[in-house]
Amino acid sequence: MNIDGKPYRTIWLGSDGVSAEIIDQTKLPFALEIVTLRTLEEAAHAISSMQVRGAPLIGATAAYGVALAMREDASDAGLARACDVLAATRPTAVNLRWALDEMVAHLQPLPADARVAGAFARAAEICDQDVEACRKIGEHGMGLIEAHAERKKGETVNILTHCNAGWLATVDWGTALAPIYKAFDKGISVHVWVDETRPRNQGASLTAFELGAHGVPHTIVADNTGGHLMQAGLVDLCIVGTDRTTANGDVANKIGTYLKALAAKDNGVQFFVALPHSTIDWTLDDGREIPIEQRDASEVTHMTGQLPDGKVETVAIAPPASRAANYAFDVTPARLVTGFITERGVTPASREGLSLLYS
Amino acid sequence: MNIDGKPYRTIWLGSDGVSAEIIDQTKLPFALEIVTLRTLEEAAHAISSMQVRGAPLIGATAAYGVALAMREDASDAGLARACDVLAATRPTAVNLRWALDEMVAHLQPLPADARVAGAFARAAEICDQDVEACRKIGEHGMGLIEAHAERKKGETVNILTHCNAGWLATVDWGTALAPIYKAFDKGISVHVWVDETRPRNQGASLTAFELGAHGVPHTIVADNTGGHLMQAGLVDLCIVGTDRTTANGDVANKIGTYLKALAAKDNGVQFFVALPHSTIDWTLDDGREIPIEQRDASEVTHMTGQLPDGKVETVAIAPPASRAANYAFDVTPARLVTGFITERGVTPASREGLSLLYS
Repeated sequence: MNIDGKPYRTIWLGSDGVSAEIIDQTKLPFALEIVTLRTLEEAAHAISSMQVRGAPLIGATAAYGVALAMREDASDAGLARACDVLAATRPTAVNLRWALDEMVAHLQPLPADARVAGAFARAAEICDQDVEACRKIGEHGMGLIEAHAERKKGETVNILTHCNAGWLATVDWGTALAPIYKAFDKGISVHVWVDETRPRNQGASLTAFELGAHGVPHTIVADNTGGHLMQAGLVDLCIVGTDRTTANGDVANKIGTYLKALAAKDNGVQFFVALPHSTIDWTLDDGREIPIEQRDASEVTHMTGQLPDGKVETVAIAPPASRAANYAFDVTPARLVTGFITERGVTPASREGLSLLYS
Repeated sequence: MNIDGKPYRTIWLGSDGVSAEIIDQTKLPFALEIVTLRTLEEAAHAISSMQVRGAPLIGATAAYGVALAMREDASDAGLARACDVLAATRPTAVNLRWALDEMVAHLQPLPADARVAGAFARAAEICDQDVEACRKIGEHGMGLIEAHAERKKGETVNILTHCNAGWLATVDWGTALAPIYKAFDKGISVHVWVDETRPRNQGASLTAFELGAHGVPHTIVADNTGGHLMQAGLVDLCIVGTDRTTANGDVANKIGTYLKALAAKDNGVQFFVALPHSTIDWTLDDGREIPIEQRDASEVTHMTGQLPDGKVETVAIAPPASRAANYAFDVTPARLVTGFITERGVTPASREGLSLLYS
């Protein structure tokens, strides 16, 4: 999508043909900085430090990470090591493992001297496939927004989203935001309630940034607010992303998603989850089996932002002696999800629903 | 309660006998600053700028605000003007109106030259009554925590609270935290999950501060986290405060309370609301009639904290062009509340439950 009128992806092949370039998302919304990844370690660091984040983009970055690793050691041992290092960066998103499996399946049959070129080619394909999947998610999801616009006779459709499942979370288009971009581009009047998404503020920093850059009307709210908005009839539907979806339709997504799904159920508001197939973990039958990442407590006790003079600083917001816990994801049971918006269409959040599309 | 071993209330008569002193809560947890209120306007500013906050403390400060106003103009017109100015400071907490009604009932029969002394005396009484009510709330609520401790055979009881309904929200003891202090002081092993409480962070700044100052084990979490904690069996009960309680048992409290109540219901976790009778609005039958305060968007888009050098600064955390909305309260329907903990005992959250205690 566009930033200041210039089209971007979140990750692309470097001009030297053997590196990857990314937007450093830890610097948004205050600065647009491009970082070049040249080694496996740099790719792993980009994922674990959340310079890149979002399940599909984590997968794409891991694919390039394998390619970068092949430049140093294209042996089977080198491939195995690359996968070990990258798999250890983040535990919850299943796209990471999916992308690594794809790379291994593609590279293992190749002779060592063909693996660098093969890896860069496959990583680029994974990126292009992600863009295409997200574009289709956008088209399938747009119909849901259109239905609300018709029901409301053209009045603005209010959509609540949590965290960032926009183009910055994928290679382009996004998952949850793709239907919103498609609807907006078609001239449907939409307005997005953007959950701040503590502790890392991906809503206030990334979702607000990318919606604003595309011109989509939106309002940032504290994560506490969605329930009240739904009680007051100010939300027509919710759309969120997912980091891992079990075979029975349970959804692990950014911490706090479950609370919004409960509020949607309590107020009769539709709650959709947008996902490409790479987010489905067919090996799990129950969301409670999904490992929940715990991150550093400083993400809760500190906050980074911009001083009036433009300098970006990190301030402490809690008593220094107080402990904090930082669970990064929660699991929303399938019973609270109205439906999945996938690249193959909209389907119920259940084993049967998923089987209809992916048999 | 104590700060560094020294006992404090949140508001007290100044040493000159005709002013009120408060702890400036906008400076916590980084500095303990005492502010002297000498005029009606200073009292009104203390409430609207949230130097003091919490429904019972707002009421106590309003009482002193009337006393300060009497020094300037003790006529009936002066009394009416004081009530108008103070009533306009915050719309949701009903204790504010309750305290003003108490002051008017007490002062109106008095001749003008007796009103200053009468007002300071009545304000001090209102403070003492609040302390006594909170102490009793603590005693009644302690039994609920004790029951969990017995069930868990002495294992730590985990309590989740939202916002600050501790001694800093009242004159002393607190409402939701009073039972926790009583249990802790009795030697029961307790641990408190402290919701950060965006956008103003009263949990991370005030609740964590006062629990820490008293030595109560606690962990700060992002507001998004409570649902996951309850799913994981890490919460035995929730206790929160309230800014206004309707005659049928609906509860207006800090935005986000409703979401935690939904999660408690979904996970079979007890959800208690602690309140003195001054928080009950007998004129309302439905929580949807409670006016919900909207505060400045900058509380959402900016965050105040401490730099490593000790300087307190405010940083922007959202794109400057993005709008934000700041609803300060939401309404939790009585059906989600396990019970009320009041100064007269524990009772069901219903008209019948309230009638049992306040007939």
